[in-house]
Amino acid sequence: MAQVYHTDHFFEKYNVRTDLALESHQVVVEKEGPPELPGVKVETEEQEGIIITRITVENELGAQLMGKAPGNYSTIESRALREHNRDLQENLAELLAQELEWFFSESKLAPEDGILVVGLGNWNATPDALGPRVIENLMVTRHLLEMSPPELRHGLRPISAISPGVLGLTGIETGEIILGVVDRIGAKAVICIDALASRSVDRLCSTIQISDTGINPGAGVGNRRLAINQESLGIPVIAIGVPTVVHAVTIVSDALDLIEQGNLNGAPGDQIPQRVQFEVDPDVLLGKKQSPQTIPNLQDSVGKRRLISQVLEPYMGSMIVTPKEIDILIEEVADVIAGALNISFHEGVNYDEVFKYLS
Amino acid sequence: MAQVYHTDHFFEKYNVRTDLALESHQVVVEKEGPPELPGVKVETEEQEGIIITRITVENELGAQLMGKAPGNYSTIESRALREHNRDLQENLAELLAQELEWFFSESKLAPEDGILVVGLGNWNATPDALGPRVIENLMVTRHLLEMSPPELRHGLRPISAISPGVLGLTGIETGEIILGVVDRIGAKAVICIDALASRSVDRLCSTIQISDTGINPGAGVGNRRLAINQESLGIPVIAIGVPTVVHAVTIVSDALDLIEQGNLNGAPGDQIPQRVQFEVDPDVLLGKKQSPQTIPNLQDSVGKRRLISQVLEPYMGSMIVTPKEIDILIEEVADVIAGALNISFHEGVNYDEVFKYLS
Amino acid sequence: MAQVYHTDHFFEKYNVRTDLALESHQVVVEKEGPPELPGVKVETEEQEGIIITRITVENELGAQLMGKAPGNYSTIESRALREHNRDLQENLAELLAQELEWFFSESKLAPEDGILVVGLGNWNATPDALGPRVIENLMVTRHLLEMSPPELRHGLRPISAISPGVLGLTGIETGEIILGVVDRIGAKAVICIDALASRSVDRLCSTIQISDTGINPGAGVGNRRLAINQESLGIPVIAIGVPTVVHAVTIVSDALDLIEQGNLNGAPGDQIPQRVQFEVDPDVLLGKKQSPQTIPNLQDSVGKRRLISQVLEPYMGSMIVTPKEIDILIEEVADVIAGALNISFHEGVNYDEVFKYLS
Amino acid sequence: MAQVYHTDHFFEKYNVRTDLALESHQVVVEKEGPPELPGVKVETEEQEGIIITRITVENELGAQLMGKAPGNYSTIESRALREHNRDLQENLAELLAQELEWFFSESKLAPEDGILVVGLGNWNATPDALGPRVIENLMVTRHLLEMSPPELRHGLRPISAISPGVLGLTGIETGEIILGVVDRIGAKAVICIDALASRSVDRLCSTIQISDTGINPGAGVGNRRLAINQESLGIPVIAIGVPTVVHAVTIVSDALDLIEQGNLNGAPGDQIPQRVQFEVDPDVLLGKKQSPQTIPNLQDSVGKRRLISQVLEPYMGSMIVTPKEIDILIEEVADVIAGALNISFHEGVNYDEVFKYLS
Repeated sequence: MAQVYHTDHFFEKYNVRTDLALESHQVVVEKEGPPELPGVKVETEEQEGIIITRITVENELGAQLMGKAPGNYSTIESRALREHNRDLQENLAELLAQELEWFFSESKLAPEDGILVVGLGNWNATPDALGPRVIENLMVTRHLLEMSPPELRHGLRPISAISPGVLGLTGIETGEIILGVVDRIGAKAVICIDALASRSVDRLCSTIQISDTGINPGAGVGNRRLAINQESLGIPVIAIGVPTVVHAVTIVSDALDLIEQGNLNGAPGDQIPQRVQFEVDPDVLLGKKQSPQTIPNLQDSVGKRRLISQVLEPYMGSMIVTPKEIDILIEEVADVIAGALNISFHEGVNYDEVFKYLS
Repeated sequence: MAQVYHTDHFFEKYNVRTDLALESHQVVVEKEGPPELPGVKVETEEQEGIIITRITVENELGAQLMGKAPGNYSTIESRALREHNRDLQENLAELLAQELEWFFSESKLAPEDGILVVGLGNWNATPDALGPRVIENLMVTRHLLEMSPPELRHGLRPISAISPGVLGLTGIETGEIILGVVDRIGAKAVICIDALASRSVDRLCSTIQISDTGINPGAGVGNRRLAINQESLGIPVIAIGVPTVVHAVTIVSDALDLIEQGNLNGAPGDQIPQRVQFEVDPDVLLGKKQSPQTIPNLQDSVGKRRLISQVLEPYMGSMIVTPKEIDILIEEVADVIAGALNISFHEGVNYDEVFKYLS
Repeated sequence: MAQVYHTDHFFEKYNVRTDLALESHQVVVEKEGPPELPGVKVETEEQEGIIITRITVENELGAQLMGKAPGNYSTIESRALREHNRDLQENLAELLAQELEWFFSESKLAPEDGILVVGLGNWNATPDALGPRVIENLMVTRHLLEMSPPELRHGLRPISAISPGVLGLTGIETGEIILGVVDRIGAKAVICIDALASRSVDRLCSTIQISDTGINPGAGVGNRRLAINQESLGIPVIAIGVPTVVHAVTIVSDALDLIEQGNLNGAPGDQIPQRVQFEVDPDVLLGKKQSPQTIPNLQDSVGKRRLISQVLEPYMGSMIVTPKEIDILIEEVADVIAGALNISFHEGVNYDEVFKYLS
Repeated sequence: MAQVYHTDHFFEKYNVRTDLALESHQVVVEKEGPPELPGVKVETEEQEGIIITRITVENELGAQLMGKAPGNYSTIESRALREHNRDLQENLAELLAQELEWFFSESKLAPEDGILVVGLGNWNATPDALGPRVIENLMVTRHLLEMSPPELRHGLRPISAISPGVLGLTGIETGEIILGVVDRIGAKAVICIDALASRSVDRLCSTIQISDTGINPGAGVGNRRLAINQESLGIPVIAIGVPTVVHAVTIVSDALDLIEQGNLNGAPGDQIPQRVQFEVDPDVLLGKKQSPQTIPNLQDSVGKRRLISQVLEPYMGSMIVTPKEIDILIEEVADVIAGALNISFHEGVNYDEVFKYLS
């Protein structure tokens, strides 16, 4: 499948594993130089300490460079999720709701179109339990609305929700369960919530990514094997993901980068070097052609990363870690996402009313 | 649907709600007299304090009388489940496994045929959480076996399992989810685990019913609306149910029966009167024809039951109750059922080995 | 101990088990006739569907009659808790907070006096888990305030909280753990939260009792053996209790009363007969002297209740039941109580502020 | 307090934080050279893939060098805990039981002496929930035995158990709760179970430390502030700890060591250099005197570690991590420890019998 190839190629080239388009972009820019990649559009906005980055992978060339399928990726970064500040979390939920609404309109969803929300992940493994926790807090309406004509629905959208579990718990690929349910209930779109892997400890549980490319094989904490996207389901699939784990080896190599650079005024990924922009030859970026001015330092960097992986393999190679406070972090992120979904789903009805009407 | 009619007719006639064929049979025999009903075969066995009753509803006539769909119903009654005795529980699991194996062979299941186990019920409501708790303890093998040829499967059967939730949690009828999943994964049979309503406090969490008639609308603690049976799914459906709740009104009317009879040497349902057996006119039993020797006492009994319901309605009419110890009771019954399933599923492999091989 | 004698005497006389003073009072009035009992003061208030009954057991005579220790008992009854209505629940929490504040001032607690909140009960048994669930939602402040001088405490009171578990989980009497902790931390008062037994299904999870008599042996779902009261701890003990369970036999005898009376315009306990009030001879009430005009009907009533118990003993005698929806009911009552405690504890600080300040 | 000084001095000298005596020893030997430290006795045993290391800190000198209080420390290392192998886990439980029995006899505990088991940690934070999880699986007997004379106790020891929670949940120092309870119930010894911090990812959830020095301030995942030891409680305190978290900075510096050494045939801590043993001058080790032959490399190593901490501080300085699979790891380690305790507590009664007798 195309998506797997994207990911594999990217990993082979940079020895970095990340589910965030934002991080892919930073890795490429860091290693290759030019801040503008062909086939990739990036736009950043900041309000009240919350940074929104919107990346569009416009074509197959951009997809190859980024190791991500073509489509839209919005990333919302906020310390609110790590600082246990309820006010900031409510702001964040509203911002997330607005961003989701953009994705809904982009996917041509009408206000009365039914949506199936899928909580991916393993409810028995805290760092992978984000999806099921969101589902627990979701306002489910499909069964209440299916009997009433649209004019009597008070602006409520038919929402259904499942937490399909993971392969080890069910013996069934998650994708198969979702396909089966979508076939039966005739939803107009699917929203998947998933826990992701990041390359930076700094971003754990403080970043939310929304994309319209669905969930691709090998992604997420649980390493799904089947794609859950518009191609496989036949309807739009919007994925909401939050990084909750990081490879131990990644912690080490990012730390090495930091130490070597001696340039410490920003997070590992933020260090977009201020260089003169120049035309890039896509073939060089894709590795099909040797760059004329090969920067030895870059080669070293990737090579070193690989060496580190090999050296550390016996001790921590496969070790994937999560913050000690993961229980409370998951709970709070799940609240923010469920809140944002409940707001964005139902037009013309305010949050409080909706709760009174239904509960 | 035929099944709903069965249940409704039965309830209208006797004002008794029960999901147990055993209790239906006792009600009819108690009220109508003859211990042998046309179209209904009953057989009882006892070993070491465990009573197994096998009821076959042979045809539509039996189904109408009993308020239960035609098919086989085995009921295993044991105090072990209420006495927290682990040895007795292990015996019980073995007996249950044997009974299940009879149902498998009756359903023509080959040893390598894949089975989907479905844990019905609401994991957030303890008395309705039996199904999901069984699934938690189940040995799931489908994903491990699907790649290996049958000769290398070490006598393991491909087992998959889901807990689909309830309408209020998902917005989707449970039956729809199961249909969708069965369509995708090609299982050869479905086993449903469900919490039931009983007419007797005495039977709560101490009785296990197995039947090949599936789950019919209105049955179970959660009051499902769609049938989950061979007719709807196209493959055999075996239902395992345990009564965990009882209507408060039922407690009262059974108590009244006990008090009035003054005959107190047995449980409410056990009081099969010792009368001379006589030929029954099925039309009388079905209420189509007036019985020539109408026993006024019986009419009173049903009438009184109705009166009681009306009188108590405002205070406890809709109140359904469960034992105070329901958490531990559910846990232990779930262990017994999961243990029995794990044993009965996998031929030629003993229990301990299976665990070592897989865990 | 005096309290045990109260309870035992009451049970022997009326064959009714209840932890609610309100119900004790209704039983005595129902059976004995006069609505005004010597040594017992009753006052009722109603606002917006919420009934508050304040009973003062003024002396030993009242205590004997009621089977309750001398002291103050406030009972708040509201359907809000059974109707899943969040607005009503918030009103209820405010009313409960006001009532609690009355008890605080009655106990001479100053605003800066530290309070230890104790969540009694077994967190593994849903109907007995009320106490621990309240503790989970409580704002704990003692560790934050102990370093700061009172003038910098922003009107916050030092609150500490424990869920000591039950004898079967710890091997230690709950009272011993509380005594040990109170000795060490120097709290000025203890508030105990406990699940109770009621005589009426109608009152389950819809009634909250507050009293300053503490917890007496044999009370509550868990049947504690040591008293937890001012006498044993040396500081005021305020008990907050909610009935969550009812004896099956009680359901039956209340139903019988209802049926026989034919008078069905009220709940079992509400049927205070409209009789002419007359002077009561306390010795008659206490059973020390034979009433001159013994009403045979009354004798029958108690005798019948005893007979019913004996008849039903083998089937449901010891069966204690709880509503099928107990999980959600406990969750909502716990929210109301925790909310009321958080409001009432901290003077001059409003609810929202407190949360922001601390979280 | 002496213990804090030990820890602080050690941290200042080596910039390493660990709760394991085994790791302290390895750090000192690694950095200082001689494998034999004055005042510290080390003995190692290996059976079936399980390594037992017994360290005795004999005096104040050893304590200063190791940063650990004087006393006995046994460490059991086994991959069983990470490989989900039930057979190996049962072996491990037996070995742990034997080791515990040695500590009991060392503490002069008679078979009938009551023990209070304390599950330290926060049940809401998975990596810190080890203690409470062990308590859940513990066989509690004190309440069953206190009425019966020793000759009728069937070789059972009176065991009580509490999970006191953490400061943030209760507002009370854990040590205060334990002191209060010990005062009341008259236990003859306390066993504390706690989650620890390690310096090596490799040891997370695969190592169990037993010591008779209790829990000292600043130790454990939850950073307790009061000592829980023989000095504070007046009775022997045996601590059982398992590392479940590691500082992110530690992962980095250990990785750097590995990379630089180029010597990769062993785990970070296992690299005891093969040098000629020589007499050590304790004053040099304790830092009171400058070593005559200061090895600059070592100084660099500690200096570098400090530099790394400073550089990484803004991104991951305070980040403490735990493995992604922490839920299942905690569950399995808790089973092993609870099993070992249940075996070791009760003399002359085998495991299976004990369960039957009590459950």
